[in-house]
Amino acid sequence: MSDVLDFDKQSGLIAAVVQDAKTRRVLMVGYMNREALDKTLASGHVTFYSRSRQKLWTKGESSGHYLMLKTIATDCDGDALLVEAEPLGPGVCHEGYESCFFRTLDKENWRVTDERAYDPGAVYGAKK
Amino acid sequence: MSDVLDFDKQSGLIAAVVQDAKTRRVLMVGYMNREALDKTLASGHVTFYSRSRQKLWTKGESSGHYLMLKTIATDCDGDALLVEAEPLGPGVCHEGYESCFFRTLDKENWRVTDERAYDPGAVYGAKK
Repeated sequence: MSDVLDFDKQSGLIAAVVQDAKTRRVLMVGYMNREALDKTLASGHVTFYSRSRQKLWTKGESSGHYLMLKTIATDCDGDALLVEAEPLGPGVCHEGYESCFFRTLDKENWRVTDERAYDPGAVYGAKK
Repeated sequence: MSDVLDFDKQSGLIAAVVQDAKTRRVLMVGYMNREALDKTLASGHVTFYSRSRQKLWTKGESSGHYLMLKTIATDCDGDALLVEAEPLGPGVCHEGYESCFFRTLDKENWRVTDERAYDPGAVYGAKK
């Protein structure tokens, strides 16, 4: 299965775009290594490799906002994945938004163009 | 404008997901450096940095299948872009498909789940 995928181009990682299977909104971009992909397929919970923490993380493991796997597609050169998922919970973004892409470029400025879907302090704990 | 963006995390590059502004289909994933982003904004034609050829490339420069920029969003940590665009021409994929994501995982196998939208040999020249 993985022979189509080119994990070597980027140090063992492949970009994984997560799209809401119903609304088709793009929710986030993460990275998967083989282990993260295998865990995603085995568990049905979308799982990434965190480049900053250097370990696997299943989206929702702390918030409960899991991404339930629906389908996975890959692109022509096998170096990206498109994951269609059903998001549990009001938002995937740890900043409280439905999508991590909540800022849009308006001329020279990035403006927040979404409303918060939940209170991130209540889910992840307030920052001190 | 670029101060929100984190080009440093990945050697000067940011992943750019291109989505059809009308149908919301994800068409491709490319990478942009600052110069590619600036050129995209100045020209209105979505432009990437090719990691394999190590130079800028404007999608459509050889096929005529330009991606006309509509909006750009960025994510919470500023290391990915979501580009909404109007695709000119029947497909963005150089293999003849509407989207580069034309293969879907079916159990253990990647299956082509799209029909060709155009003849790539006629557009890019036949492979010899």
